Amino acid sequence: MDRKSLEKDLARNEDRFVREWKELLRFPSISAERAHRKDCDACAGWLVRHLAGMGFKARLLKSAGKPVVFAERRGRAGRPVVLFYGHYDVQPVDPVSAWISPPFEPTLRTGRLYARGASDNKGQVFYVFKALETLIRHHALDVTVKVVLEGEEESSGPGMETALRDHAGLLKADVLVVADVDAVSLDTPAIVMGLRGILGLTAMLTGSDHDLHSGSHGGAAPNPATAIARLIATLHHPDGRIAVKGYYDDVRKPSARERRLAGAGQPSSATYVKEAGVSPVGGEQGLTLAERIGFRPTIDINGIHSGYGGAKSKTIIPFEAMVKITSRLVAGQDPKRCRAAIVRHLKAHTPRGLKLEISEGGAGAAAFRAELDSPIIKIAKAVLDEVSGGRTVFRWHGASVPIVPALARVSGAAPILAGFGLEDDHIHAPNESFSLAQFRLGYLYAGLLLSRL
Amino acid sequence: MDRKSLEKDLARNEDRFVREWKELLRFPSISAERAHRKDCDACAGWLVRHLAGMGFKARLLKSAGKPVVFAERRGRAGRPVVLFYGHYDVQPVDPVSAWISPPFEPTLRTGRLYARGASDNKGQVFYVFKALETLIRHHALDVTVKVVLEGEEESSGPGMETALRDHAGLLKADVLVVADVDAVSLDTPAIVMGLRGILGLTAMLTGSDHDLHSGSHGGAAPNPATAIARLIATLHHPDGRIAVKGYYDDVRKPSARERRLAGAGQPSSATYVKEAGVSPVGGEQGLTLAERIGFRPTIDINGIHSGYGGAKSKTIIPFEAMVKITSRLVAGQDPKRCRAAIVRHLKAHTPRGLKLEISEGGAGAAAFRAELDSPIIKIAKAVLDEVSGGRTVFRWHGASVPIVPALARVSGAAPILAGFGLEDDHIHAPNESFSLAQFRLGYLYAGLLLSRL
Repeated sequence: MDRKSLEKDLARNEDRFVREWKELLRFPSISAERAHRKDCDACAGWLVRHLAGMGFKARLLKSAGKPVVFAERRGRAGRPVVLFYGHYDVQPVDPVSAWISPPFEPTLRTGRLYARGASDNKGQVFYVFKALETLIRHHALDVTVKVVLEGEEESSGPGMETALRDHAGLLKADVLVVADVDAVSLDTPAIVMGLRGILGLTAMLTGSDHDLHSGSHGGAAPNPATAIARLIATLHHPDGRIAVKGYYDDVRKPSARERRLAGAGQPSSATYVKEAGVSPVGGEQGLTLAERIGFRPTIDINGIHSGYGGAKSKTIIPFEAMVKITSRLVAGQDPKRCRAAIVRHLKAHTPRGLKLEISEGGAGAAAFRAELDSPIIKIAKAVLDEVSGGRTVFRWHGASVPIVPALARVSGAAPILAGFGLEDDHIHAPNESFSLAQFRLGYLYAGLLLSRL
Repeated sequence: MDRKSLEKDLARNEDRFVREWKELLRFPSISAERAHRKDCDACAGWLVRHLAGMGFKARLLKSAGKPVVFAERRGRAGRPVVLFYGHYDVQPVDPVSAWISPPFEPTLRTGRLYARGASDNKGQVFYVFKALETLIRHHALDVTVKVVLEGEEESSGPGMETALRDHAGLLKADVLVVADVDAVSLDTPAIVMGLRGILGLTAMLTGSDHDLHSGSHGGAAPNPATAIARLIATLHHPDGRIAVKGYYDDVRKPSARERRLAGAGQPSSATYVKEAGVSPVGGEQGLTLAERIGFRPTIDINGIHSGYGGAKSKTIIPFEAMVKITSRLVAGQDPKRCRAAIVRHLKAHTPRGLKLEISEGGAGAAAFRAELDSPIIKIAKAVLDEVSGGRTVFRWHGASVPIVPALARVSGAAPILAGFGLEDDHIHAPNESFSLAQFRLGYLYAGLLLSRL
């Protein structure tokens, strides 16, 4: 379908779309709270029925956690298979007293629908649903569409991981569509071209089995607190580059065009200070902010704890010191190899007399990077330009969304990450909302994209 | 008096001495517990009466905390003034259930008197008292003796500090005798020739006013946890030497004889591991254990705290990081100048984008070092050799006893630190005790010392 027909259909059906969207938002599907387990099941059941009503073969996939909604509608032979990923669970609602209208009584005020999940992710799921419904009603959907919606995105449950393992065959696809991301503003859509990977570990340095008196033992006993500081300091060169051997070996460098496009989208230093409360002077010196965030790995200390932390002083040599480390990875880097490199580095730099133990962190997640020249990205860009009047930007994020590279790997699909979330939606906070204007843009984007793939 | 007469007198009076000592031990003078405030006052009152009975002009000095007992007995004109320092307060007794006999019902079992304070410090005070009493009875005390006993040694109260300030004139003396220290063993007495000084501070590095997401901000925002580790790492050279500019400038180096005597008394590496639970491989490389502990300053990290410390991981850039630092000082070093040097160093090494705040720590305390060639030390050594058959050793401790340099400064006296405490006394622990054999050695030492000064 073209833009005009989609707009016409939306105008005719908007009241019903909003009514149905409100139905979905009434489920308090808070995955982190055990009391809402049944609400999550009820929400998943509603989605299965709704998808079946739209013409999908829909069902629940059992998992180690909350059920995963899976639906499929076959298209014409030879046409691509599109896998749409979203989640039906929502964040907790505390403090409830801060909500103007109750979080699970969706309320329309001045063009915005207020409810927990209105944006994240039920709103962004539902405009895709309604675009699909419209295309199906108009016999205009000829690609095969698979829908997979998990119920533990907000609570890091095991559900999706076991579903990926047990139902890999079901998920095979050519294109992966994810809408769980933001636009820059209402008139500036964005395609997320990159996400960093992540790995984490906990390192513990131990000396004695008890704190020692820093008078009697100072200068004699090795100090784990001092030693962990020195150990951490070896992880970076003075100019901020990571000093772990080989850490940059597999880093896929950005092209000149990627660097230019990323730089064009980076905030000014003043804007950054306003948002983050600190100057963007961290990381590797001599690189732009956009490059440091989008194209370079980091090793960040998330926590250090050792010894005394109260008032005045306690004259001890702490018996142990602990550090929590995460590393953000970029395209090309293998989480397992990077983890091994850090572990090797920490072992090699552990001082005499102290014991190093490494724990936790698991397998980590690889980065995701899309190619500017990929035909899929070109289609998405064209569609978003048509919706926005040519203002689409590309973004390389610093954060990690482990499900994207994982689903891309299992499904074999090329991901398209674009959505219409905005800062104003206040996701994860009281009074979450999504405007009808955002819903309309998402609906047009999804409708056009599914027509052109 | 000579040793023989002292021994004879002790044999005649031992029963009464022990009876009186038990009276003193019955006061639950726990300075850290408010409930025992009146017991502390009662104990101080008993001491004043007891000293008066011995022939002293005794009274209580008012202080900002618990009263300080002060007593004086004038000797012959031209003879030296000896100031004896001790404390009448004791440690708490928890867990009471671990005591074989109640902590404030002194009980003699197989030659040891069991009670809280039996050793620390009432026992070591009382053998000095009884030596004084004997000399006075025999008209054999011709030095002027001043006694000062504080009531807040175990609880770091302000009492002694205000007494030093308000009554400096009273405390003027030639020799300061302190018995609140240990021997090596029952047959090996020790003179404490050195104590290290101390200074402390807390440093805080702050970035934003809230934790930042380590994905969105990693490589952009400076990380206070990483930065504090790097900052701490600048405090020492790789070989363990302190890297703060000028830190060793005023260090008084040990003579070859001091180094040799200290080395002779140092524990073997195996003994050290057994006691401390860790190898003595810390501090400056290339120096002996005894030299590192007795003659070299340290900068030790007593605690570092920043960000997350729980299970798994939390992907944040912590907004602040805190470190607790103490430095042990040696003879020659001025605590104020050393503190200023560390602060200057920390400021100079604070990375861009983060704010450094230094707090706490106060004025610190200087080190104490006695001279092997001092006539006072030679007398003390001769007396201890006579008591022990020539086995006296010299010790340079790593710990700090701030009252010693403070009292030495205010009184103008040369300190003698020797006592008969032993590991077996279990001071600060349940079932504290002091043997009659230790009491006898202390009595002989004090009696001979006061006869020979």
